[in-house]
Amino acid sequence: ESIPKESICWIDHFGFLEDATFKQRYLVADEYWQQPGGPILFYTGNEGDIAWFCNNTGFMWEVAGQLGAMLVFAEHRYYGESLPFGQDSYSDSKHLNYLTSEQALADFAVLIQNLKNTIPKAQDSPVIAIGGSYGGMLSAWFRMKYPSVVIGALAASAPIWQFPGMVPCGDFYKIVTQDFAKSGYNCDASIRRSWEAINNVSSTASGLQWLSEEFSLCNPLKNKNDALSFKGWLQETWVNLAMVDYPYEASFLQPLPRWPIQVVCKHLAFDSSVSDHQLLHGVSQAAKVYYNYTGSSACLNTSQTATSSLGALGWLYQACTEMVMPMCTDGVQDMFEPEDWNFQTYSDECNAMFGVRPRADWAGTVYGGKTIASHSNIIFSNGGLDPWSSGGVTGNITHSLVSIVIPDGAHHLDLRYSTDLDPPSVRAARALELKYFQKWIKQAQKTRSKEKSP
Amino acid sequence: ESIPKESICWIDHFGFLEDATFKQRYLVADEYWQQPGGPILFYTGNEGDIAWFCNNTGFMWEVAGQLGAMLVFAEHRYYGESLPFGQDSYSDSKHLNYLTSEQALADFAVLIQNLKNTIPKAQDSPVIAIGGSYGGMLSAWFRMKYPSVVIGALAASAPIWQFPGMVPCGDFYKIVTQDFAKSGYNCDASIRRSWEAINNVSSTASGLQWLSEEFSLCNPLKNKNDALSFKGWLQETWVNLAMVDYPYEASFLQPLPRWPIQVVCKHLAFDSSVSDHQLLHGVSQAAKVYYNYTGSSACLNTSQTATSSLGALGWLYQACTEMVMPMCTDGVQDMFEPEDWNFQTYSDECNAMFGVRPRADWAGTVYGGKTIASHSNIIFSNGGLDPWSSGGVTGNITHSLVSIVIPDGAHHLDLRYSTDLDPPSVRAARALELKYFQKWIKQAQKTRSKEKSP
Repeated sequence: ESIPKESICWIDHFGFLEDATFKQRYLVADEYWQQPGGPILFYTGNEGDIAWFCNNTGFMWEVAGQLGAMLVFAEHRYYGESLPFGQDSYSDSKHLNYLTSEQALADFAVLIQNLKNTIPKAQDSPVIAIGGSYGGMLSAWFRMKYPSVVIGALAASAPIWQFPGMVPCGDFYKIVTQDFAKSGYNCDASIRRSWEAINNVSSTASGLQWLSEEFSLCNPLKNKNDALSFKGWLQETWVNLAMVDYPYEASFLQPLPRWPIQVVCKHLAFDSSVSDHQLLHGVSQAAKVYYNYTGSSACLNTSQTATSSLGALGWLYQACTEMVMPMCTDGVQDMFEPEDWNFQTYSDECNAMFGVRPRADWAGTVYGGKTIASHSNIIFSNGGLDPWSSGGVTGNITHSLVSIVIPDGAHHLDLRYSTDLDPPSVRAARALELKYFQKWIKQAQKTRSKEKSP
Repeated sequence: ESIPKESICWIDHFGFLEDATFKQRYLVADEYWQQPGGPILFYTGNEGDIAWFCNNTGFMWEVAGQLGAMLVFAEHRYYGESLPFGQDSYSDSKHLNYLTSEQALADFAVLIQNLKNTIPKAQDSPVIAIGGSYGGMLSAWFRMKYPSVVIGALAASAPIWQFPGMVPCGDFYKIVTQDFAKSGYNCDASIRRSWEAINNVSSTASGLQWLSEEFSLCNPLKNKNDALSFKGWLQETWVNLAMVDYPYEASFLQPLPRWPIQVVCKHLAFDSSVSDHQLLHGVSQAAKVYYNYTGSSACLNTSQTATSSLGALGWLYQACTEMVMPMCTDGVQDMFEPEDWNFQTYSDECNAMFGVRPRADWAGTVYGGKTIASHSNIIFSNGGLDPWSSGGVTGNITHSLVSIVIPDGAHHLDLRYSTDLDPPSVRAARALELKYFQKWIKQAQKTRSKEKSP
């Protein structure tokens, strides 16, 4: 069981004019902790409610006993309850100014120092950072930037190279497409055809009405612009399915059946002779697997594609500032409508939305891009089914910057509770991750005892 | 010869609200550069005019030929001509808000990326950071935080541990005292006695007048408070002399003779029977060695203790925010009036001066304190005569985080032009530094060719 606590944080770690503080939430579970000196597994919270991440990170709970570890789950500023300016935190670009990864890492560093200074017998506890997705990027970066604070990091499904100039912009959607291609007959081809079918059907008022009814949309489509958003919503739906294509029934972004893409694809096994309406009926059935598996949705809401525990607006701001991740599609190697990556267009959209412009090269400069070999003790785990593996580290860099690939895994499957349906690859990954943790802890104890002896 | 240039920099690297830029000055000398791929020696500018540092860093010019290196001297924001808000940069705490070491390091990283993107055949050039004093701290921290940008760093006389809780606060003034103790008969004892003598003499109006005349002060002492400032000025004078106790005539903080403390001490060789006035006459002669070696000063200005090329106000602000360096004296192990370190008093003074308060633990958290063994390729050189060696790394940490001690050296003597009067210890230090540079460059070339081969 985890106990919620609060830590006092500077709103601005990198300037002294703004000297106000805010309360950062974190959760602590110490029932497995062997004191003194037992390790601390520190979850570097990402863009959402920390309680939700805590519940979806069973791996930490499962290894805590084996390591005699304390668990700490730290909430990322501007998400969940950790709002620097309370309800005003998102009111304008002035209040959003302190939502950056650098500030979040500094929060984590200060929090760990505070914990070590206040929890009796924790002073010598080695700390390991653990995170998934953006939180995995934070874990890796935390070890890179604050190696005095954490002895190592598990960066699960962390696309640290999904930045300009580091990987091809089309890889992400290619992986999404491959997941569908291998999950059912003509599944990717049907989706590829669906965009033109939507264009055809939505060209008339009656077609828009038919689409709205067929997809049980809460807000009916009224014009061409709505049809455009509708396609964007469907595209995001397929991406989300690729992220959570888990081998068992689960509820992460949405409640879903086992291997959900296979279930989705049952509705999309069409030949090329299928009519637009038949095809789109199949697509609507497929979409409902994702949005209405439990049968409890009266209608589909196109403004929400995933759990509300994720802070979509905050992430949008981060993507509009530091987290510039180029994506593109060509409709040939992927099943989407062709769209180039255009930084200027993107920047203009960000400016219209938030009054800020992204800096394309900053993340690469501050976090080292592909030149990271001088760091140590980081595990990069990636799932073969996960589109985010496109920007992940999928090969060993050095003997202590290692990659673990889980061919049958979707988005950070390794961080989830183990189940009987887990593929052997994820079991092996978790075992190996535990082994690295033990190795780092031993290293740290050795260094410490050397420092203490005269 | 170095050519001045300008680079466009974000005023705020860590937030996106302030999207203005400023012009950072840097100096480039490429007459020794072997292209393509020859290394770049990058001077991480400290608290002053970069042209002055450039002229006082002969070591870089001397090794450039041997390494086929390009030299770049980057000016630190808020100093010299690199003023983010022009003449308003120091107007208030709002404008001073971007004067931090983290912003300065980000400037350096962005500048190097820009150089590599714009100078033909510099793309593959390995970069080594070099700096002295605060600039040496920046060099070390630059390698720690941006190892993708610089392959190694020479941190000369860099007191990276002069922060709360890392070293005893009295060590700094102990070293100053030792320098005087060994430079002449009773030299430290006379200075230790001088404070009481000043107290005695300054207790009357005629005494204040006598002191003002004896020391040829531009602004005569008028009251007890002035006498207090006067003692502070003298204390700073002895500290500065310890920093620049070079084995040859030089002009760094002030124009000075060879081994200036020995010259100073000739005026202070008193027995304990000396009268207050005799003693203070000696002290005034000693002070004039520092302030009027050239004989060109009509009077002594107690508001200026060193060259105006140093940005004293900017450094004061930095000391009042991140650079919290505890110092204390006991009058027994050192030759100064006893004074404890009191953070609260210090913080209140800072608040009165700048409207900001220092954060005592931040530098230790962000730069790792004494836990830096996971980093690599940093040389910490320290002079045995230099009071700043109190906060320096004076023992090897690992085989690639190495210490070089120069027993006969004052403040970063190794960075200066070589002379016939250099002690063997500094010659050896420079040779060893060059050897490490060559080793790092070889390492980098090997890594790069490995990355390029299929």
